[in-house]
Order: sequence, then structure tokens, then C-alpha cells
Amino acid sequence: MSDTARMEIAVYPLGTGSPSISREVSSVFEVLDHCGCTYEITPMGTIIEGPVDRLFTLARDIHESVLAAGSGRAVTMIRIDDRRRDQA
Amino acid sequence: MSDTARMEIAVYPLGTGSPSISREVSSVFEVLDHCGCTYEITPMGTIIEGPVDRLFTLARDIHESVLAAGSGRAVTMIRIDDRRRDQA
Amino acid sequence: MSDTARMEIAVYPLGTGSPSISREVSSVFEVLDHCGCTYEITPMGTIIEGPVDRLFTLARDIHESVLAAGSGRAVTMIRIDDRRRDQA
Amino acid sequence: MSDTARMEIAVYPLGTGSPSISREVSSVFEVLDHCGCTYEITPMGTIIEGPVDRLFTLARDIHESVLAAGSGRAVTMIRIDDRRRDQA
Repeated sequence: MSDTARMEIAVYPLGTGSPSISREVSSVFEVLDHCGCTYEITPMGTIIEGPVDRLFTLARDIHESVLAAGSGRAVTMIRIDDRRRDQA
Repeated sequence: MSDTARMEIAVYPLGTGSPSISREVSSVFEVLDHCGCTYEITPMGTIIEGPVDRLFTLARDIHESVLAAGSGRAVTMIRIDDRRRDQA
Repeated sequence: MSDTARMEIAVYPLGTGSPSISREVSSVFEVLDHCGCTYEITPMGTIIEGPVDRLFTLARDIHESVLAAGSGRAVTMIRIDDRRRDQA
Repeated sequence: MSDTARMEIAVYPLGTGSPSISREVSSVFEVLDHCGCTYEITPMGTIIEGPVDRLFTLARDIHESVLAAGSGRAVTMIRIDDRRRDQA
């Protein structure tokens, strides 16, 4: 019930005209600031810990925030590592 | 509104005692059979097309189905390619 | 010795000014045409089968071909599924 | 020429009988200890900086080290972010 999983997410905007993605990254931070989860920024993405349902919702919000920042196409990569205590 | 995105998903059970993952793959098929989305099985995962919110829900269901199939730990990889028609 | 593995690869050029990546995809095809490996194009990338050393070399060549096609930044995703016959 | 890229790599052994992957992770550390590159361990993998050719060689060595540690099947995920200074 109180199991938490770990998710890594990275979102890449395509067709922005600039190789920099700092504007999109700051929109991700805004989502994270309000998520109430533990997270860590790495040079390759963001790692978030929390209940797995919450992680999927966050992933969708982060993905949407990058598209809302103006790019017409975004590629989002997500990796979830989920170990259930009661089973293993 | 009617925008669809494309998602690739692959789930790997860890610690199962066998390098085969066919049991887990068949639990994924059960989810897909009822999803009402267009999907394609590749040698490396499943590609699904649909509204992006639906894709995130499906990803969660597929992830859960593999854990429910008995493995104590699952690593799920998701890649979403989302191009908004109105913007680009 | 004659073990083959399977690799999926997708390369995304960043900062190109257009959300289309067709020019970069065609540079990938040129590499694949000369690779002598079995490959399959999916809507989310390319799946290649071959000896694992060959796959890593191909991955590098594909990655370079996309940068050579003109983009200043490229993000490449690779997933390799490698099952050794003698061991399992 | 002196361009460096960034790579994230994570290797998952399948069919090991235990959800723990600590033995495989320590074989990865042995490769990294001798690589002469800057690297960082995160809860989801390893991030390495270096010339892109070196990164591909390291990825192959890390992948092999996990199979050599005894698992019959390994799934390796690699993401490379490569920004060329002279171009962008």
C-alpha cells in the first residue's frame, strides 16, 4: 500500500529552432515544485520517488508542460523501477 | 482535441528465475486486447497509438499487469512521441 | 560465438527548427543499407539483429550520421536485449 | 575534436532468481573505475561524460560485464546526449 517506486523522466522538445532546452526544463521544475514528491535533478533527466500511480500522473503532467511551453512535438522517455516489498 | 500520440512500452520483470518473459508478455496482451487502441507488437516491445491521456493510463495498467503476474520487481520503459497538429 | 542480440535505436535531432525528422531518418537508412544486418523499421525506431559488437558499432555510426546531417545536438536512445544461448 | 558527450546507461539482468541486482552493479563499477572518464551514479543508472567514441566502447564493456557476472540475459538501456560545439 505504502510502496513507492522510482521513475526517471526526460522530455525533449523537437523543432524548437534552438538546441537549448532550458525553457522546457523550467516548465518541468514548476510541475515538480508542486508535486510533493522527492525528486532529484541529474544531467540526464529527473528522478522522482513516490507511489506508482502518482508517478504516472506526474509523468503526464511533465509531458504536457513541455508541449504547453510551445514546442509542437515532444519526445518523452520514462523508466520506472518498481519493487514490491510484500513480494520481494 | 482528437490528437493522437504514439507510445512504445516494454516491461521487464526482474528476479523471476528464468530469462524468459513470455508469461509477463501474455499479461500485457490481455490489457491490450481490451484497450480499444491501435497497437503493434515488435520484437522489442509494444507500440500503441491513441490520445495521450489514454496512453498514460494504459502504461500504468500494463506495468501493473506484469507485477500482478508474479514478479517482485519490474522495470518499465516508456517512450512517447507526441506531435500536436494545431501547433506544428 | 555466433550469438546474436537485438537492438532498438532511435535518434532525435534537437534544435532543427522543424518538428519533422525525415532528413535525419534517411541518413539512418543509408547506414542500415550497408550494414549487412537484419533490420526492421517501426513507427518508433529501428530494430536490428546481429552480433552484439556489431550492434554497438552500428549504433555509433547511426548516431554520427544524424549529427552529420546537420543538427547541432542529437539525443540517441538504445536498448539492447542480449540472451546468451550457452548460458540460458 | 575535444567534444564530449553525456551518456546514461542502465543494465538489467533477467532470470537471475533474485530481484536484487547488486552483484551486477558492482561489475559495472569495476569497468568504470578503469575508464578514466567522469561518471556519476544515480538511483537509476550511471551517467558518464567523455568523447562519444569512448562512450560507445564503455557501453559495450559495461553490457558485457553484466553478462559475464553470470546472468543469461541482459537488457541494456543507453541514452546519449551529444551537442557539438562547433555546430551549435
